[in-house]
Amino acid sequence: MPHLSHLFLCRRYHLKNFSTTTTTTTTTNTPVTRSPLYLPLSHPTFLIWAANTSLGKTLVSAGLAASFLLSESSSDPRKFLYLKPIQTGFPSDSDSSFVFRKLSHLSLRRQPHSPLFSSNHVLRASLPAANSVLGYGCGTSCERGMGNLGWYEERRVEGEGGSGAVSELVCKTLYAWREAVSPHLAAERESGVVEDAVVMDTLHNCLRVELEGAGDTRKEIDVFCVVESAGGVASPGPSGSLQCDLYRPLRLPAILVGDGRLGGISGTISAYESLKLRGYDIAAVVFEDHGLVNEVPLLSYLRNRVPVLVLPPVPEDLSNDLMEWFDESRGVFDSLKEKMLSAYSERIKRLRGMPKKAGEIFWWPFTQHKLVPEGAVTVIDSRYGENFAVFKAHNNEFITQQFDACASWWTQGPDATLQTELARDMGYAAARFGHVMFPENVYEPALECAELLLEGVGKGWASRAYFSDNGSTAIEIALKMAFRKFSFDHGLLSDFRKDNMAGRGVELMVLALRGSYHGDTLGAMEAQAPSSYTGFLQQPWYTGRGLFLDPPTVYMCNSTWNLALPEGFHLETSKLENIVIQGAGGMHMVDPLFQRVLANECRLKRIPVIFDEVFTGFWRLGKETAAELLCCAPDIACFGKLMTGGVIPFATTLATNAVFTSFLADSKLMALLHGHSYSGHAMGCTAAAKSIKWFKDPQTNLNVNSEGTSLRELWDEELVGQISSHPAVQRVVALGTLFALELRAEGSNAGYASLFASSLVQILREDGVWTRPLGNVIYLMCGPCTSPEICSHLLVKLYKGLEQFYQIKAY
Amino acid sequence: MPHLSHLFLCRRYHLKNFSTTTTTTTTTNTPVTRSPLYLPLSHPTFLIWAANTSLGKTLVSAGLAASFLLSESSSDPRKFLYLKPIQTGFPSDSDSSFVFRKLSHLSLRRQPHSPLFSSNHVLRASLPAANSVLGYGCGTSCERGMGNLGWYEERRVEGEGGSGAVSELVCKTLYAWREAVSPHLAAERESGVVEDAVVMDTLHNCLRVELEGAGDTRKEIDVFCVVESAGGVASPGPSGSLQCDLYRPLRLPAILVGDGRLGGISGTISAYESLKLRGYDIAAVVFEDHGLVNEVPLLSYLRNRVPVLVLPPVPEDLSNDLMEWFDESRGVFDSLKEKMLSAYSERIKRLRGMPKKAGEIFWWPFTQHKLVPEGAVTVIDSRYGENFAVFKAHNNEFITQQFDACASWWTQGPDATLQTELARDMGYAAARFGHVMFPENVYEPALECAELLLEGVGKGWASRAYFSDNGSTAIEIALKMAFRKFSFDHGLLSDFRKDNMAGRGVELMVLALRGSYHGDTLGAMEAQAPSSYTGFLQQPWYTGRGLFLDPPTVYMCNSTWNLALPEGFHLETSKLENIVIQGAGGMHMVDPLFQRVLANECRLKRIPVIFDEVFTGFWRLGKETAAELLCCAPDIACFGKLMTGGVIPFATTLATNAVFTSFLADSKLMALLHGHSYSGHAMGCTAAAKSIKWFKDPQTNLNVNSEGTSLRELWDEELVGQISSHPAVQRVVALGTLFALELRAEGSNAGYASLFASSLVQILREDGVWTRPLGNVIYLMCGPCTSPEICSHLLVKLYKGLEQFYQIKAY
Repeated sequence: MPHLSHLFLCRRYHLKNFSTTTTTTTTTNTPVTRSPLYLPLSHPTFLIWAANTSLGKTLVSAGLAASFLLSESSSDPRKFLYLKPIQTGFPSDSDSSFVFRKLSHLSLRRQPHSPLFSSNHVLRASLPAANSVLGYGCGTSCERGMGNLGWYEERRVEGEGGSGAVSELVCKTLYAWREAVSPHLAAERESGVVEDAVVMDTLHNCLRVELEGAGDTRKEIDVFCVVESAGGVASPGPSGSLQCDLYRPLRLPAILVGDGRLGGISGTISAYESLKLRGYDIAAVVFEDHGLVNEVPLLSYLRNRVPVLVLPPVPEDLSNDLMEWFDESRGVFDSLKEKMLSAYSERIKRLRGMPKKAGEIFWWPFTQHKLVPEGAVTVIDSRYGENFAVFKAHNNEFITQQFDACASWWTQGPDATLQTELARDMGYAAARFGHVMFPENVYEPALECAELLLEGVGKGWASRAYFSDNGSTAIEIALKMAFRKFSFDHGLLSDFRKDNMAGRGVELMVLALRGSYHGDTLGAMEAQAPSSYTGFLQQPWYTGRGLFLDPPTVYMCNSTWNLALPEGFHLETSKLENIVIQGAGGMHMVDPLFQRVLANECRLKRIPVIFDEVFTGFWRLGKETAAELLCCAPDIACFGKLMTGGVIPFATTLATNAVFTSFLADSKLMALLHGHSYSGHAMGCTAAAKSIKWFKDPQTNLNVNSEGTSLRELWDEELVGQISSHPAVQRVVALGTLFALELRAEGSNAGYASLFASSLVQILREDGVWTRPLGNVIYLMCGPCTSPEICSHLLVKLYKGLEQFYQIKAY
Repeated sequence: MPHLSHLFLCRRYHLKNFSTTTTTTTTTNTPVTRSPLYLPLSHPTFLIWAANTSLGKTLVSAGLAASFLLSESSSDPRKFLYLKPIQTGFPSDSDSSFVFRKLSHLSLRRQPHSPLFSSNHVLRASLPAANSVLGYGCGTSCERGMGNLGWYEERRVEGEGGSGAVSELVCKTLYAWREAVSPHLAAERESGVVEDAVVMDTLHNCLRVELEGAGDTRKEIDVFCVVESAGGVASPGPSGSLQCDLYRPLRLPAILVGDGRLGGISGTISAYESLKLRGYDIAAVVFEDHGLVNEVPLLSYLRNRVPVLVLPPVPEDLSNDLMEWFDESRGVFDSLKEKMLSAYSERIKRLRGMPKKAGEIFWWPFTQHKLVPEGAVTVIDSRYGENFAVFKAHNNEFITQQFDACASWWTQGPDATLQTELARDMGYAAARFGHVMFPENVYEPALECAELLLEGVGKGWASRAYFSDNGSTAIEIALKMAFRKFSFDHGLLSDFRKDNMAGRGVELMVLALRGSYHGDTLGAMEAQAPSSYTGFLQQPWYTGRGLFLDPPTVYMCNSTWNLALPEGFHLETSKLENIVIQGAGGMHMVDPLFQRVLANECRLKRIPVIFDEVFTGFWRLGKETAAELLCCAPDIACFGKLMTGGVIPFATTLATNAVFTSFLADSKLMALLHGHSYSGHAMGCTAAAKSIKWFKDPQTNLNVNSEGTSLRELWDEELVGQISSHPAVQRVVALGTLFALELRAEGSNAGYASLFASSLVQILREDGVWTRPLGNVIYLMCGPCTSPEICSHLLVKLYKGLEQFYQIKAY
């Protein structure tokens, strides 16, 4: 046995005594308080998936390890990290042990290369799994749960070539169970559920330590890492979550091990699609040849986007040590490794170049480009529920997580589960309909969406749903409806029926609240009072066709609610627009009593009332519609933003039957001749139908009460009070999913154009909270499903940020 | 053998001699000329899919047949139709034969029931498959291809109960190959490719004949039909297309046979997702129990939306006749059948009720509801490429196909393949991003989309991409850009920098073409000349802030191109908008020379030029951008509609660097303060990036020349000439994907409000062409990938329709 002479060291020992941790202590009620996502990008890291169980993921991992560590070309020391987060059938099945052993054998076989130090470490195991290794007796006193197993083995093989610097293979199994069944079953039977956040925590701590090391030295070494999943892409993990969902926050680039057998094309394509449906990028597909040339239809399906590699048939004889197979496969693994390395470097190169490129070719809305240096641009790699995954390039390059606290312009709401459901529904709707024309047609998503709107936010008053693309168009439509209704009610129509162009002398105006914002198309602008948004610099055609009132507002200061009174108002003319929170206008909470009185007064004078619920609709303020807070119904209301669960633009204008009938006549010219190419698009209707149901169902939204009528309180009263008493804070508003504060500021530091808040914004972003100020107003906006624990966490960070801000500004 | 006494008849014979048909004659170059989709809905019809091969699809089919035909409760005669479109491994494997045999045995075993007449018919087979049955010698002279096999067997079992009326089991294999491999391989080796359209033709003819019969008698009988796929959901069919794509035009409701083995949860979920990604509805999941309680995670994943049924373990002993297993499974199959029946009746009930419900709660854009009776509402079940699948309820209820000849308000372009790709990409984008905030951020889809726009339609002139939601908003943004640029160039800015509100006295106007349409928001309306769309009845705030020119237009009449001259024009003031085809204005083709001269004149006077390419962009007129037809570049251009491949609303306004820099300053108030919640949404950017690349790549769009610069001629010159000479036709325009004609009409029969064309529209819809008139203008609009053969087919139908229309109108 000449091999043995190369073995420098082969030890196995237990790092620690076995100790169990009960389910209740390994899991947590507040997953958010765990360490935030941190994924180093300093070295290539891939997740190995398979279309089914037993397709050879571990062979692929071992082959890649060999290709990386045992190549003749490189004499520099290298490190290959193999992670198996979830292992069942342990210890008789141990993939990390397999990789460890095969590499030892291959390293003896393939010379010359650098000396190789290999280790295999099994971190945690269920009691039955630990028993099998250690011979523990399982008395009744044993607690259930996962224990620190600390099983460890290592070897060193001296290389005959290279500089003598030692390369390293690190194999780790993170969690192991004894029974060779699906992890969710094994966990259920042996340890109890292990929460996703716990597995992910262990995994990304492992990645951080092994890829970045303690100091800077490791960065000099070439490292390559693979994480190997268990079973197929959608096999459940130990909590019951599908693994493709479990690992999603890291969104590691994927390698898919396909199925080369009869019927395997289907399974491979479906697995590929399940990964795509969760936002993964697949760098390559690789599978074992079974003589069926499955690569041909796969390449055709993939349109050569993704490389497909074929491995030689694996010997069926179980006693075969596969050394010859690995030799035979060497070229394929070298090629696979090269493709992975080039996918990695392309990704990094792209991420690095994005801020500059963006600054060169984007024209961002509401952005003074001169004030956005390259370093201030946020590179968003993905979203997962309420969080962005953001690329950072400080000292090390890495992906980290930031809570989307501006709810991406108030559109966001879904948690990660709803996001996955919406993704599947978006794929379905695009496949079933794409977009189909709406007028005079009917199709399921549009009908279901209209039904849900009229049974939900329009309940009790609305009879018709008019679809458009965004809040601004919904407002333009609402105005056209209101003009017609007013004309109808006040006998203005008869003249114009004869001559549509007549009567330009009649001037219709809106009665609206100063500081309100309804959108940036001209009609919506005209319904706003003059402001920075409406000046000649922005739109010379703006005239401001309204009477604009200063409304009384409500706010908290020093833990006390206050009412700010206006100077008075007149109710003289044509139309009223009504809102509950003035969003873009600076997050002012308008006195609800004032609004109710105003709406009733208008109704008495037959002035149609429009509620602009584009921002407030769908639980933003703790109720499905803000009309519930006002306790009165409008004639017309506009919804958008969160209506689709924050996926795509879509809006609706709801109207009463009386408004609708003012457009009925024998002539088409009396109809509402307003539409957009994608009016009532199936994608938007599908997303809205899903989200509307999801948000109001206590089964899917834990924040909703059992009647489905209200959200529970999300912002901790005490923390809100504390913040409202902070010396840097002028006023605070907290309602539903919204928490807003106005910073104490004077002169040019106040108002929309102010950059006063920017240092606080930076502090918060560094702390994982992505906010965007409205001048000197800072807000946090969560989704209807966000847990109060997460909200408290955000408030704590905000308070800490305020302290720092206060120091800097030295009020 | 007491069973035998019940056998009335058991015959097998060959209906015809075997005759082969060569590949070239079974396939076709113009699939569109095949009989259009026709799917009877008179009886429940389901497609049986499986997550993998060998999971028991045929057992499920047989179990359902037994449950339906052999129940004790019903004494009325019934018919069960079992179709196996694609069979490999024939004749040793024959699923239709298996169902036929098992049912015969079960019918003897389960008494009482009605007498049962069973038949099994194998229609077509490859020569090697036929040889195995018939003992044909395969000489070299034998042509390759599929032949009519005509293999037939039948049996009759007398029932002991019931009225004596005969129930029927009809089993059919449509295409059979000998080798037990994937159909695409078998076809390649034995018969050559069999086109999808050929398989589908045979299948839906079969469905039509068997479900609706020759006369009316069959309708009285309860019929239940299952179509069984081969292998897994994404296994290739005999052309190489995946079966989930092959069968998609019928979009039959699905039953998914899952995988109960270890690892089977993953495969089952992935298969489910592949079906959803193609727009299928799944009525139930059923699988064989392997003791792993796979139903628990499946139900959790499916959130109880879809029933999951578990079948008892199938005996592994191949000699077992499974009679006991079928008995044991009886309850499960009864329950499955009930779920299928109720899914069927719910679907039918919903489809029937949709027109009424739609008329009650929708408010359609551009629609006079008083003129839309319930019977005129089109129920769209789905889209497949350029075609709608439409529900009809004339005598029989059925799904048929209509070409979306109005391109759903000019948004549509994808063929079926692109639609599937877009569906997967939409799922991916929603899963990876949903929507993330755009300003000051960068993410891959937005960057890629901007790059493609600037390298494509903006090449050579544009430097910045501004994103918004639709054509109307893109125009509002373009106007704001143009106002600023004009003010900058003409020294108007200095005053307003000091006082944003100053200088309302300065009135900026647009120079635009009469008859143009740019959208329905007020700003876009103001840039249009007064028309039916802009009167007091529609928007009392409209004033028409422009100088409007009557442009010269180009059209064909009597096979001759003509130029209609305007009275003249002035170039006096501030701004010009420019378009090539006036779409909504009545499909006028404006003289390109005129436009080029006008644009150049404006440039000399430093008047910014806007191209509204919302309709014309992305190959509508045969070039990626209409600017190529005009041979001049604008300062600003708007794109939308087809930009996303017709999936979702998304628009862009491109601008030169000079326009962009007129917004650069130290103050945020100088920035373009216009935005929409979903500005630059990831879904739209993803769809646009995919579509832009797809349409211009000669690999994916066969209409594009090898340089990727022009579409080939789609409208047959001779047919166009013929139509232009028709006495009912005033003028014709044919360019790129557009063919339009104006019907000869006078007085109130002409213009937008006219209903003159409605009888022609009805004629065309009955003939499978879904058009929507613009007053007395009728147009056909195809996609950039639509084949010239399909276009010719549409022109022929249009000509036929004109003939009929001419008779009715008796000009």
